[in-house]
Amino acid sequence: MNITNADRARILVHALPYIRKYTGKIIVIKYGGSAMQSDKLKDSVVRDIVLLSLVGIKVVLVHGGGPEITDMLKKIGKESRFVNGLRVTDKETVDVVQMVLAGKVNKGLVNIIQSNGGKAMGLSGIDGRMIEATFKDEALGYVGEITKLNVQPILDVIDKGYIPVISSVGCDTSGNIYNINADTAASKIAAELYAETLISMTDTSGILKDKDDPTTLISKIDVKDIPKLIESGIISGGMIPKVECCCEAIRYGVKQVIILDGRTPHSILIETLTDEGIGTMFTKG
Amino acid sequence: MNITNADRARILVHALPYIRKYTGKIIVIKYGGSAMQSDKLKDSVVRDIVLLSLVGIKVVLVHGGGPEITDMLKKIGKESRFVNGLRVTDKETVDVVQMVLAGKVNKGLVNIIQSNGGKAMGLSGIDGRMIEATFKDEALGYVGEITKLNVQPILDVIDKGYIPVISSVGCDTSGNIYNINADTAASKIAAELYAETLISMTDTSGILKDKDDPTTLISKIDVKDIPKLIESGIISGGMIPKVECCCEAIRYGVKQVIILDGRTPHSILIETLTDEGIGTMFTKG
Amino acid sequence: MNITNADRARILVHALPYIRKYTGKIIVIKYGGSAMQSDKLKDSVVRDIVLLSLVGIKVVLVHGGGPEITDMLKKIGKESRFVNGLRVTDKETVDVVQMVLAGKVNKGLVNIIQSNGGKAMGLSGIDGRMIEATFKDEALGYVGEITKLNVQPILDVIDKGYIPVISSVGCDTSGNIYNINADTAASKIAAELYAETLISMTDTSGILKDKDDPTTLISKIDVKDIPKLIESGIISGGMIPKVECCCEAIRYGVKQVIILDGRTPHSILIETLTDEGIGTMFTKG
Amino acid sequence: MNITNADRARILVHALPYIRKYTGKIIVIKYGGSAMQSDKLKDSVVRDIVLLSLVGIKVVLVHGGGPEITDMLKKIGKESRFVNGLRVTDKETVDVVQMVLAGKVNKGLVNIIQSNGGKAMGLSGIDGRMIEATFKDEALGYVGEITKLNVQPILDVIDKGYIPVISSVGCDTSGNIYNINADTAASKIAAELYAETLISMTDTSGILKDKDDPTTLISKIDVKDIPKLIESGIISGGMIPKVECCCEAIRYGVKQVIILDGRTPHSILIETLTDEGIGTMFTKG
Amino acid sequence: MNITNADRARILVHALPYIRKYTGKIIVIKYGGSAMQSDKLKDSVVRDIVLLSLVGIKVVLVHGGGPEITDMLKKIGKESRFVNGLRVTDKETVDVVQMVLAGKVNKGLVNIIQSNGGKAMGLSGIDGRMIEATFKDEALGYVGEITKLNVQPILDVIDKGYIPVISSVGCDTSGNIYNINADTAASKIAAELYAETLISMTDTSGILKDKDDPTTLISKIDVKDIPKLIESGIISGGMIPKVECCCEAIRYGVKQVIILDGRTPHSILIETLTDEGIGTMFTKG
Amino acid sequence: MNITNADRARILVHALPYIRKYTGKIIVIKYGGSAMQSDKLKDSVVRDIVLLSLVGIKVVLVHGGGPEITDMLKKIGKESRFVNGLRVTDKETVDVVQMVLAGKVNKGLVNIIQSNGGKAMGLSGIDGRMIEATFKDEALGYVGEITKLNVQPILDVIDKGYIPVISSVGCDTSGNIYNINADTAASKIAAELYAETLISMTDTSGILKDKDDPTTLISKIDVKDIPKLIESGIISGGMIPKVECCCEAIRYGVKQVIILDGRTPHSILIETLTDEGIGTMFTKG
Repeated sequence: MNITNADRARILVHALPYIRKYTGKIIVIKYGGSAMQSDKLKDSVVRDIVLLSLVGIKVVLVHGGGPEITDMLKKIGKESRFVNGLRVTDKETVDVVQMVLAGKVNKGLVNIIQSNGGKAMGLSGIDGRMIEATFKDEALGYVGEITKLNVQPILDVIDKGYIPVISSVGCDTSGNIYNINADTAASKIAAELYAETLISMTDTSGILKDKDDPTTLISKIDVKDIPKLIESGIISGGMIPKVECCCEAIRYGVKQVIILDGRTPHSILIETLTDEGIGTMFTKG
Repeated sequence: MNITNADRARILVHALPYIRKYTGKIIVIKYGGSAMQSDKLKDSVVRDIVLLSLVGIKVVLVHGGGPEITDMLKKIGKESRFVNGLRVTDKETVDVVQMVLAGKVNKGLVNIIQSNGGKAMGLSGIDGRMIEATFKDEALGYVGEITKLNVQPILDVIDKGYIPVISSVGCDTSGNIYNINADTAASKIAAELYAETLISMTDTSGILKDKDDPTTLISKIDVKDIPKLIESGIISGGMIPKVECCCEAIRYGVKQVIILDGRTPHSILIETLTDEGIGTMFTKG
Repeated sequence: MNITNADRARILVHALPYIRKYTGKIIVIKYGGSAMQSDKLKDSVVRDIVLLSLVGIKVVLVHGGGPEITDMLKKIGKESRFVNGLRVTDKETVDVVQMVLAGKVNKGLVNIIQSNGGKAMGLSGIDGRMIEATFKDEALGYVGEITKLNVQPILDVIDKGYIPVISSVGCDTSGNIYNINADTAASKIAAELYAETLISMTDTSGILKDKDDPTTLISKIDVKDIPKLIESGIISGGMIPKVECCCEAIRYGVKQVIILDGRTPHSILIETLTDEGIGTMFTKG
Repeated sequence: MNITNADRARILVHALPYIRKYTGKIIVIKYGGSAMQSDKLKDSVVRDIVLLSLVGIKVVLVHGGGPEITDMLKKIGKESRFVNGLRVTDKETVDVVQMVLAGKVNKGLVNIIQSNGGKAMGLSGIDGRMIEATFKDEALGYVGEITKLNVQPILDVIDKGYIPVISSVGCDTSGNIYNINADTAASKIAAELYAETLISMTDTSGILKDKDDPTTLISKIDVKDIPKLIESGIISGGMIPKVECCCEAIRYGVKQVIILDGRTPHSILIETLTDEGIGTMFTKG
Repeated sequence: MNITNADRARILVHALPYIRKYTGKIIVIKYGGSAMQSDKLKDSVVRDIVLLSLVGIKVVLVHGGGPEITDMLKKIGKESRFVNGLRVTDKETVDVVQMVLAGKVNKGLVNIIQSNGGKAMGLSGIDGRMIEATFKDEALGYVGEITKLNVQPILDVIDKGYIPVISSVGCDTSGNIYNINADTAASKIAAELYAETLISMTDTSGILKDKDDPTTLISKIDVKDIPKLIESGIISGGMIPKVECCCEAIRYGVKQVIILDGRTPHSILIETLTDEGIGTMFTKG
Repeated sequence: MNITNADRARILVHALPYIRKYTGKIIVIKYGGSAMQSDKLKDSVVRDIVLLSLVGIKVVLVHGGGPEITDMLKKIGKESRFVNGLRVTDKETVDVVQMVLAGKVNKGLVNIIQSNGGKAMGLSGIDGRMIEATFKDEALGYVGEITKLNVQPILDVIDKGYIPVISSVGCDTSGNIYNINADTAASKIAAELYAETLISMTDTSGILKDKDDPTTLISKIDVKDIPKLIESGIISGGMIPKVECCCEAIRYGVKQVIILDGRTPHSILIETLTDEGIGTMFTKG
């Protein structure tokens, strides 16, 4: 296409009211799963984050890393046992979780952010005892339930001018480490930080009336209509817990929660800095 | 044209390296003359300034207002006497200059900046004794030559988060007010603030090899080549003193000085946040 | 008279308890009208302000400029239409109001304050969107009623060590400019700043029991007695709206409001730093 | 005399340029001897100090207390032995010196300053190890010579808004306490604080050409002329070491050093805030 | 005994949880009486204070000095009159009290603290008008009852990094000085500072069930049991007012109040940084 | 052994001068190798660090993790190729290095520090682009040589009150990750931070004259004597590069560098807070 620099300038100017809306506010972005697998998509997401950060928006990145964990467990020949479809996380497994999330995925994201001109600091829920947790269910081993969230380390890192990148692992006072669901962690962090917006990146087209037709995307859902949507099967499968985390964030006071298709290039910028809503936004009342 | 929001996002991302370059730096923009006469162009310039300011660039706007002064003198039936082509500025005339610049043009610019979402504070060279001056030439009356520049009030206003908008009038310790050339004031202010860039808005196509052919714009001029360009007539007329102010700014340490056609919409953004140089840039060596 | 330096020192010492009373507090001074016409009186008022400021009192100067506006309208041959005795302020008139107040009177006061050793910054209600207003009465044109007062720019300027000098013009989000009554602006500003004292400079002898006998000055008036005094004709004519502004300031929490004769040299210092009350003080209960 | 409040206001205004000169600057006042004996004079001196402090001048008060020490030694029946006319300060004597200076005189001055509306904190050279000293002459016992001056405690106390009142006792790292000459301490403190002025209060008429004729006061002495004045006997006796301390302060960079007759009421204010110089000022070159 | 450095290290490590408990908290220590007479014990107490201060605990030292006052009164041959067993404090006596406490004892403690590596500043209740008082009983003369406690000077001194050492003398707005009971002053200061702990150093073995058997020390007393203990004679004599001060501190919100035998070397460190409670602790409920 | 609490207190007091020496200073501790393998020793080291941190010393922990890397490589069945005895670090290997150091060892240390009451934040050389590196030798793959050290992230983390724990991995602007020798990183970090002391924990007895006799420990080595000691074989094998790093730190301005046997419990505290030097200290001149 033939876009002139005059067009470019006009487009920058059109972003003005959106930039103003978010300046100085906190946006928490939950990033993970297969949307994080493609290097090209990862680059696109990271550039969006760096741009938001440069225009004065405080971005907090919370990541999971299920596929990388699975890969590493396979590599070391660790077989997983499942209880009710959930992976039992024994000591050896949680060690791998910590290592992969805090060592591989986290520093990898920090590295790309910095290669794109941002300034980042990677933390885990262990650093500054940010995420305190306990056993969710003894049968599942080191799968954690958050008991106390201390966002001071995140604020400290923002205050020093870095983009905080956070691995969802937790700890307790006895020195145990826990695998924490990243959606849950992101929701609670967004709530505790009084974030303006929580964006949850997925690798699906969002919530569709007809799951086979991307043009049937539901743009806005009032949280009170969710039970009905679950009942009717429109929200189903792995999307159910994700939507429930979104609701929780709304209940705790986050103004907007958006589920966004991470496979669309620059979906974060389009959602935040243009008039187009390309994800599903959850609101209250 | 048909520009999608995906295009928009990509364009925003392309601005990233340029935003990074200027973040936290000072850009002084000299604005005035007939480029300030069209409301539409004024809006375009002001939006560029607000956008630069929102993305973390410290913009300082220095303005003149020749045509408005001429209008007002005409309205009150004041006839001007000329010496060597320069208007003799008697007490009554300098009163009008102060009133029009600091009261009409300055507050007008502050008002438009704020209507476009910026936060501005309008100062004159009198406030905080910013521009101290003396008589340039007794025969010309209250035409001032800067004797001392105190940029503290500008820094104070930036520090409190406002865009400083500055009228080029000066004062002395005896209470006299002087009409100060806005190009000169802008050059000295840029130098004193260690500005990254000084942009001088004009209402011509910049410096053209063939003055009748806008495609012959000279993009870059080394200050040492200026005498030659004047001699050859390429730089001529009212452009000569303007170019001399630019040179002075370069000599005093401003990194880049750009003469920009204010009639091109969003020329400031195109110049600073894209890869296109649409003005004439002066550099050293 | 023969006053020795020992007398002078004793007098300075006698001012001690009064200085202590006001140190670090805010005094808003409304200044305008014919008291501002005499250069000698203006000098006297300004010196008082600079002295108060030097001894650690935070002085905020709010000014009008009716006579200067009338002069300028006359100069440009603009005829005024009146409705119920109030001047209709059309677009051209409000442009003149803005220009004269923010450009001429405001910078003039800043200039004299600085010639007397103070450090001042001149603002209008437009700067930092300080005074937001709307139409008071469509028939009157751009005569404004304050809808929102934002004193942050005043506090910012005080914080940086300047005496704020404020022109009573207002603005709205559509870019309109309004002529605002300076007494009203001063009252509201004093209230919003939790000022210790509001001093309203007039060019009459204050409120006299017998308007022809200056020795019948009423020193103290309880705001609840004002209706009675209006009824009896002691407060009458142009003094009525002025007194009503004073009452409003008292109601909004300003501790003392004083109407002072600007024609008495150094009346501000006499009122604030000696045991003599030479104006009429309004109090509550 | 019949001084009106209008006169008072005019007098306050006349003090303006002097206040401006000293605002934010440090004035060290050495106070002691018999000038401190009269309660009325002490009150006058203290009120001057409080006034200077209220108008934004940073006053540091350094005091001695010879007569009080002599009184107390007499009371406890302690006989003093003299060597070359100097009192031998044994352990018991230096204990009395510390007790009288830091406990009686110091807190007494703090108390009067506060009764006159100032805010003071009394320190000795021991607090914060401000004055480190060693034996001047073994034969004289605990008479100290300053080895290191640490003015940080003075700056800390000024920073918190108190007038520092300082007793001239010193200490060493072995825990010994020393009697320090107050003139010397004041000179060194003034130098170390880059004081604008050092005022040394005496109980004589200053330096007179004819010591019996107070009208022959020498207003200004260039330090290079001092030897001549000593030789000629104009500076003699106890005035010699006092003058030498003044010279030292000048040499160390204090701008003005003034010897002032503490018996003249409000001599400090007359000297600093009027056009009259009633003491002898030492200057350089 | 043969303690290796390995033992030393282990002991330091054992102190860790105790240091953590108090880090950043305020401990007020009341020190006086005969426990202050032995130089060796004084050194031991002071070293404990310096160590607590170095490990980040904010120690405030409040001292009396009865024996030193008695000594000095004897020295100057001043006879004391008694009313109901309480010494009548006439003007001359209170002068001695001020001088001895603020000049001798206070600076003496500051000096030793500094010889042991601490950084201290000695204040009295006069400085910054910290302790305002009035006559407790006309018949007793200048014996004061605290009417207002202003702890700002203490906080200012802590903020600047000094250990505040405080003499218990008070003042009023008329310039009178009062002798204040140091136990009372310490209790009120501890309460006003929201101190974690108040330690009252005595020169007895604490509260013993059998006053002749030091092994019968009562380690913990609930304040509600005190009347019973007084009735049974276990708390008696001079211990009664001391215990009452402790109760008052508890009532005002101090968490722990401990009476400690100052004759045991390093009793403060043992009490605060080990698991051994060697004093009597008062608690609530 | 029978150590009383009185002994404990005395021991704490004896640590006073050592605590004072280091208060507010930076100590860099290089920790790694087999000394990190025993949980008991790790606990002992960490407690020492927490104690130093609590008493106001700024500890920076730099760690390696060779054995853990070897374990993980073994687990995933990765065979290492060696060139001149150095492991070739291909892309897969450096991924493991990053993951193990930044994810496992780093967060493990943070976790233990916090279980012992410290407050820590774990960083890698990637965070904030702290350690920039390039290829040391193409044949060795991703083995890095430090090209630029940016200690700002370390200072930021200290400023916010955390103990920084640092993994020695580096990055470059192209996004490559490098394995960095931890001894080298620690030396350069200590130098750049102007550390008071660099402590290098080893798992040998330090430098012994007779390598089989631990009683022949050399306590102090002047860096100029090192070549001689290498020549004579006293410094040999893996100790040579370690000693060279120590020398480099000394050359860059670190005051003291100490090689300490990590197998001795609490060796850090013994070395820093007692009079016993149990390691080998390197000094200059």
